[in-house]
Amino acid sequence: MGVETLREADDGPRSKRAAILGAAVEHFGEVGFEATKWSEIAKHVGIGQTALYHYFESKAHCLLTVMRIGLHNSDEAFRAATADAPSAHEALRRAVRSAYEISDLEVRQNRILQANIALLVSERSSEREEAERLACRELVARIERNWTELLRQGMDSGEFARRDPQLLARTLLGTIVAVWRWYRPGGETGLEAICELVTHCCVRIVTP
Amino acid sequence: MGVETLREADDGPRSKRAAILGAAVEHFGEVGFEATKWSEIAKHVGIGQTALYHYFESKAHCLLTVMRIGLHNSDEAFRAATADAPSAHEALRRAVRSAYEISDLEVRQNRILQANIALLVSERSSEREEAERLACRELVARIERNWTELLRQGMDSGEFARRDPQLLARTLLGTIVAVWRWYRPGGETGLEAICELVTHCCVRIVTP
Repeated sequence: MGVETLREADDGPRSKRAAILGAAVEHFGEVGFEATKWSEIAKHVGIGQTALYHYFESKAHCLLTVMRIGLHNSDEAFRAATADAPSAHEALRRAVRSAYEISDLEVRQNRILQANIALLVSERSSEREEAERLACRELVARIERNWTELLRQGMDSGEFARRDPQLLARTLLGTIVAVWRWYRPGGETGLEAICELVTHCCVRIVTP
Repeated sequence: MGVETLREADDGPRSKRAAILGAAVEHFGEVGFEATKWSEIAKHVGIGQTALYHYFESKAHCLLTVMRIGLHNSDEAFRAATADAPSAHEALRRAVRSAYEISDLEVRQNRILQANIALLVSERSSEREEAERLACRELVARIERNWTELLRQGMDSGEFARRDPQLLARTLLGTIVAVWRWYRPGGETGLEAICELVTHCCVRIVTP
């Protein structure tokens, strides 16, 4: 997947929305949400602040949209990867792989998501921000259910050791997403080595 | 450990510093850093804003201080827990346990740390904020070295499977601290059950 993942179904051909989201991912991902000036995004895309506000009513509205798209893509990737898995073990391997077989843009999106996930806790006073926040929360819960279900099936079939599936799902998810805190494309540890180690960890944890 | 962990060596007996830090932990931990008004902290402690600024020049300065104290306590707890361990396996178990045998105040401190860790990435323009940020970064690196060293010793003695010790340390740390994202005291899953599961996960991961 690439930049096109930031284009949503209801964006018209002349919409600047995807370009704004792309610029936001670049800025929020590199210098952080707080340090990014909203006016820099407008400048980067080559539009005025008025046009910018046509698409997003605030920097937080844009951030929450970036987070919601990232969560939506993770959910879709999980479903696509695990749909036809012949066993729970293979579903687990494919699910972990789907979390790391992503573009540099998606790596930045994940970094932004992890760095700002605390934003999802409290209600937003703006209606559009609140709608994106609630959509994010629903997706977080859905992703947790995906993993809980995968683990429960493995336990029911006897492939995985019996444990509290929800607590185990949260633990494995925590292990998988913690990587976005420190991983940088081009650094000394590549995503392939990380994927290999995290897969090993997850398999060892669930195996009876 | 309790509230007294927020009192530092250079706080005089009449200093309001520990009380401010305690109120900050409560507010930042419950409603989040962004949603907390600096004036609420002053009100909670029963001092004026001028007195508040005597101790902390900004809300971010206070937050970074809370984070630095939390990291310092984690580092100390790790060292105390693992110092006399008879084996690498036992050191690992004790290290994990030290991460979860903490007070509700420390749970909130950890939640604040995880929710705001992205703040450590970019330089602060204020000198005092920057000093706390650099101290936090040094502590994060030290904690990572503690874990890397523990794992390396286990690999050298043959107790643990040979792996990249730094990458494995980051992965185990990620698993351990991810809990602070969702755990709430009094919720349906207790810290004891979490500690038991995470210990199991870490042991399974490192065992050859």
